[in-house]
Amino acid sequence: MDYNKLALELHAKYRGKITIKLRDNTELDREKLSAYYSPGVGEISRAIAADPRALPKYTWTNNLVAVISDGSAILGLGDLGPRAAMPVMEGKSLLFKHFADIDSIPIVLDVHTADEIVTTIKAIAPSFGAINLEDIAAPKCFEVEERLKTELDIPVFHDDQHGTAIVTLAGLINAATVTKRDLSTAKVVIIGAGAAGTAIVKLLHLYGLRDIIAVDSKGIIGDSRTDLNDEKLALKPYLNCSMSGTLADAILGADIFIGVSKPGLLTPELITQMAQDPIVFALANPVPEIMPDIAKSSGVAVIATGRSDFPNQVNNAIAFPGIFRGALDHGVTKITDQHKLAAARAIASLVENPTNDEIIPSVFDKRLVATIAETII
Amino acid sequence: MDYNKLALELHAKYRGKITIKLRDNTELDREKLSAYYSPGVGEISRAIAADPRALPKYTWTNNLVAVISDGSAILGLGDLGPRAAMPVMEGKSLLFKHFADIDSIPIVLDVHTADEIVTTIKAIAPSFGAINLEDIAAPKCFEVEERLKTELDIPVFHDDQHGTAIVTLAGLINAATVTKRDLSTAKVVIIGAGAAGTAIVKLLHLYGLRDIIAVDSKGIIGDSRTDLNDEKLALKPYLNCSMSGTLADAILGADIFIGVSKPGLLTPELITQMAQDPIVFALANPVPEIMPDIAKSSGVAVIATGRSDFPNQVNNAIAFPGIFRGALDHGVTKITDQHKLAAARAIASLVENPTNDEIIPSVFDKRLVATIAETII
Repeated sequence: MDYNKLALELHAKYRGKITIKLRDNTELDREKLSAYYSPGVGEISRAIAADPRALPKYTWTNNLVAVISDGSAILGLGDLGPRAAMPVMEGKSLLFKHFADIDSIPIVLDVHTADEIVTTIKAIAPSFGAINLEDIAAPKCFEVEERLKTELDIPVFHDDQHGTAIVTLAGLINAATVTKRDLSTAKVVIIGAGAAGTAIVKLLHLYGLRDIIAVDSKGIIGDSRTDLNDEKLALKPYLNCSMSGTLADAILGADIFIGVSKPGLLTPELITQMAQDPIVFALANPVPEIMPDIAKSSGVAVIATGRSDFPNQVNNAIAFPGIFRGALDHGVTKITDQHKLAAARAIASLVENPTNDEIIPSVFDKRLVATIAETII
Repeated sequence: MDYNKLALELHAKYRGKITIKLRDNTELDREKLSAYYSPGVGEISRAIAADPRALPKYTWTNNLVAVISDGSAILGLGDLGPRAAMPVMEGKSLLFKHFADIDSIPIVLDVHTADEIVTTIKAIAPSFGAINLEDIAAPKCFEVEERLKTELDIPVFHDDQHGTAIVTLAGLINAATVTKRDLSTAKVVIIGAGAAGTAIVKLLHLYGLRDIIAVDSKGIIGDSRTDLNDEKLALKPYLNCSMSGTLADAILGADIFIGVSKPGLLTPELITQMAQDPIVFALANPVPEIMPDIAKSSGVAVIATGRSDFPNQVNNAIAFPGIFRGALDHGVTKITDQHKLAAARAIASLVENPTNDEIIPSVFDKRLVATIAETII
């Protein structure tokens, strides 16, 4: 399937993906307009001025997520700027509506530093019920999310970090069952220490994994490295930092490989160095670190990728609709680490009998949103 | 009719006024999702990165207006802050959709100086096809609009200023016909020199009126005043500045009274001081400077107000849907003074045989949007 061609056709045909409709689809006569707008709406303004907690009672903010990007890390395409980010953010709004009936609007930012991004989002925040950050480059994405979580009283969630981490953990829980492993003693090698890699390391550590080796473009992140930036230094407490060297050194005897890096980095030769029945999550998009058929023929027991044309798709859309549905419905103002763990367990639980080719539920599983939303309380 | 009660009922029932729906209402299968989102949407990002002019071809920005307020001058209620502004801005989005099929989203700002407002709106501007400023207090609204018009390449329109001015001029054109007046020699007294008053003065001057006397809370704005701020000094070239005194001094022999001020400021006694068959636009909302029945019994020939329960309603919703429809459809990036004049003339022309009780078309006139939009080229 040529998705590029289909994308051009569909986007040109509909000239975008979302539109506004009115909640009240009865005839709007003069009286109703005088209640929805001036003079009647003044009474709603007075009610909200008297008690700002009434905002979600009377306005669409109760079901509204802003999908916000500065366009600095669009999909795998890099920094193409805010306008090029718009179709992706509008696509995310389509997914929000389609999977979780959440109203969502794309906002792209023509500012570029972490401080400017935070200042802008804080300035517009009263317009929304929650904020989904998207495609913001590391390391600034970490500062942006942390500051907004502290400084705003609505949920803020950077999906490239946590959505990926949650679905990855869900898949690993079931992959461990299939390969009869105990995750708490499993050796994990993760390559790529950007937004997704950092969040995966932290969530796996929180779940109980203790032998996690991270590799970036310079090699293993460990005690012998002298070139680490603040974000990578902050990651060290979650890692096995005793090693040095390259991916080839790290992977010796590893139970699990997780790639959030570049196409083709995992070779059949490297796989032969892993433990028996290894687990491989090759999540580079759209071309993974190794193709599933090659991984399997090289002895991998469970292979997951970001691709929809192979089994075991790690797709953020499995997680974020239910997480925001739960946060909005339950008045949750912070999405916590415990929420992320609970969401991962909930996703894993929907695969009743995990097999090598089924460790992650389909994004079309109708139970997903409600099952995850129940855990966001 | 108790609009406050109806407003509370409707807002609580629907929990807001607008919602998102998908443009493509066919079944979204895995293939379509792969075209609307990753990986196919990357092709759209690349196309827009290569040529930013493709943004409206492929995204909802082609039909999207942001309705933006800081909540500093909500209706007649004053500065109640951004959250209290949200139901009004969402109401405006409802009007945009209902009258002109324009997608529109309410954005309320938690920043308060002109500079902060401009910086925030510029940061989010690539998300939209046009910007409607709303309920921002004078005088900062003037700086905000002027700077944004200069610094952005999409239409920016402060409706409290220009929407009101356009409909007022449209009504005056027909009121002059009804009372057999030549507007170019008519004496106009306007009370209130805020957002609406300033815009009305400038548009009437542009149309050719030359004897305009403006009155603010301190009296007639004229050469003897030493307390005028920069905005009022800038207004003097459009005014007859030879007089001093109060409204009572200004109104002697006036043909036209325009109130954009406070309830009750125009008394029957003052009306007796006006010219024969005077025209009164008493636009304070929701309670006008004089009630229509009292004005008529005091000898006023044509009375217009902002109220929907009397004839001759000056309602911004007569103008702004068509103005934005035209700007979006015709790729207009600046709404100019000539556009405003043309829109006023177009509105006036829809009343084929003006009478004392019909100088302004109904907001429900189905010809309005297309007729105005044709002039925004």
